Amino acid sequence: MWLVVCSYGWVLICYTWFMQKHFADRLVAAVRAKGTPICVGLDPRLDKIPEFIRDRAFKAEENLRKPLRAAAEAIIEFNKGIIDAVCDLVPVVKPQIAFYEIFGFEGVRAYQETLDYAHEKGLITIADVKRNDIGSTAEAYALGYLGETPVEDGGVRVFDADSVTINAYLGFDGVAPFMKVASAEGKGVFVLVKTSNKSSSDLQDLRVLNDGTSGSGGRGGRGGRKGRKSGELTVYEVMGYYVDSWGADGIGESGYSNVGAVVGATFPAQAKVLREIMPSAYFLVPGYGAQGADASDVAPCFNKDGLGAIVNSSRGIIFAYEKDEARGPAGYAEAARIATIAMKEDLKKVL
Amino acid sequence: MWLVVCSYGWVLICYTWFMQKHFADRLVAAVRAKGTPICVGLDPRLDKIPEFIRDRAFKAEENLRKPLRAAAEAIIEFNKGIIDAVCDLVPVVKPQIAFYEIFGFEGVRAYQETLDYAHEKGLITIADVKRNDIGSTAEAYALGYLGETPVEDGGVRVFDADSVTINAYLGFDGVAPFMKVASAEGKGVFVLVKTSNKSSSDLQDLRVLNDGTSGSGGRGGRGGRKGRKSGELTVYEVMGYYVDSWGADGIGESGYSNVGAVVGATFPAQAKVLREIMPSAYFLVPGYGAQGADASDVAPCFNKDGLGAIVNSSRGIIFAYEKDEARGPAGYAEAARIATIAMKEDLKKVL
Repeated sequence: MWLVVCSYGWVLICYTWFMQKHFADRLVAAVRAKGTPICVGLDPRLDKIPEFIRDRAFKAEENLRKPLRAAAEAIIEFNKGIIDAVCDLVPVVKPQIAFYEIFGFEGVRAYQETLDYAHEKGLITIADVKRNDIGSTAEAYALGYLGETPVEDGGVRVFDADSVTINAYLGFDGVAPFMKVASAEGKGVFVLVKTSNKSSSDLQDLRVLNDGTSGSGGRGGRGGRKGRKSGELTVYEVMGYYVDSWGADGIGESGYSNVGAVVGATFPAQAKVLREIMPSAYFLVPGYGAQGADASDVAPCFNKDGLGAIVNSSRGIIFAYEKDEARGPAGYAEAARIATIAMKEDLKKVL
Repeated sequence: MWLVVCSYGWVLICYTWFMQKHFADRLVAAVRAKGTPICVGLDPRLDKIPEFIRDRAFKAEENLRKPLRAAAEAIIEFNKGIIDAVCDLVPVVKPQIAFYEIFGFEGVRAYQETLDYAHEKGLITIADVKRNDIGSTAEAYALGYLGETPVEDGGVRVFDADSVTINAYLGFDGVAPFMKVASAEGKGVFVLVKTSNKSSSDLQDLRVLNDGTSGSGGRGGRGGRKGRKSGELTVYEVMGYYVDSWGADGIGESGYSNVGAVVGATFPAQAKVLREIMPSAYFLVPGYGAQGADASDVAPCFNKDGLGAIVNSSRGIIFAYEKDEARGPAGYAEAARIATIAMKEDLKKVL
């Protein structure tokens, strides 16, 4: 009896220790354990989910005349198949919430179940939500996604993701509440710095004056910019300096911070500069595969230690069956596994 | 019999016509009908919802051991009380989704029900979600919040808000999908330009070069910037020029565009400049009341026609009972009504 209680106690202590461990340290350990920095993007599009899964969901009696509920069930089944197929290969998954929110609260239920299932399978999760707000509003997001939601007589873990993506157009006020919860919970944030899309240049590539009067500097963010001439800095570089300064107090034993950055693989030259500006930030790198970037494009996102970046692929993995005639829709999970292994080999060439 | 069918047909035609009418035209008509530009922010905080409502929700048998569901029910009841109390006074309500998402899918259900109830009561809704993403991801948000979600055999209106707030750090790619759905549906978007918080200066106040090489200009956005000297423009002003150009094709009979801007009341001098940069954009103005701005601060957000801005108040109205000893928690709805009337009078001084 005592042995059982003690064993259970130990498991609980180990789990608590692992969960509260520094986010970047957990991430580095997972990347090393799996031998690859791949993040699988769980971006389900209903029309691309194999017909046999959709049919089952939409014809189930409990879902009749409830198309949003049926869609959510189809997404959950599809995602579980993908997670089962890749969970021993990759350290991280990243569900993009837009593809769930489009189905309303039923879709958000599918989002929560997807995060839960990914955790059960030992994966680190990035809630790709790009949330942005200030003060108590940002705190509500932070508690909901990373912490505990206060309700009568206690708190409830709702989304309980390991990390979130955020947009810092609103400045430090919009970042601090996320950092606070992340630090307390052993979790992380990824701040949008240079995104992978073409028109990211509209705002992010604006060149700024650097005469000491421009921008408040957040929490010492201007420090790193000293010595750079006016016009030499872009908005995304300034954001990079902010991220570097915001993350300075949150560096773990691995040398990486719990404040990371989103840096698109489609701009390798810019990524190289950002790597120098933010040596301690983990990069979340979208744009590989379907968006056109290859292994050589993502190489500048890594540090010399071979760490510092996780590379996301969504469509290229989860809908790999579309280009895999041998397996087709029925073998979507196996096709995803094969595509993941191919991506792993591809990245090995440059790491 | 025919009379009934014809009447029903007419109601349907009128409703369809009203819904598809240009967003800004609908907004102007509603502001004129109610005689005020007030937007009530529905930002429920569970601990501030009167105890008698929380008790009812948490003690209901169907909610036992389901605290998130109970919280959602409490929010719905609270919001309906507020909406009933103010729906004949104000044209617009704006639920901030963070305060719903914190309760997961149950909270999102409360969000949908709140939007539905506001529509039933004839109010225009702004889904304050500050979403931001690109391509098909942004499209998923746009369809979910403003349009129809495609499912098997058709489409379903999910959130069906009249407008959304969006963050354009990602450039035109992140705005275009929202504009497309908004234009097709007679709906609108509000782009974050200059936010009301203190650290909005971190990024938004950076001064940029304006030599024709900086920023791609989105869809002709650089046009309006000609003649402005290098260093004279801030990031938020550049964003203002973008919003002006993005909205140029979406101007309705009222002279206002379906692409609006979020401009904080806490920076009146900056608002004056932005009013000139974006003459056709409707401003959504946060910061009045609890955040410290008063009627004179919001005045520069309006055009000479007395239109062009809606002024949001959240806490100052929905939790007015906290400062209203005569009514207290039991009279929270009446307290909200009285606070709304006081705000209406206050704004009249400057309009």
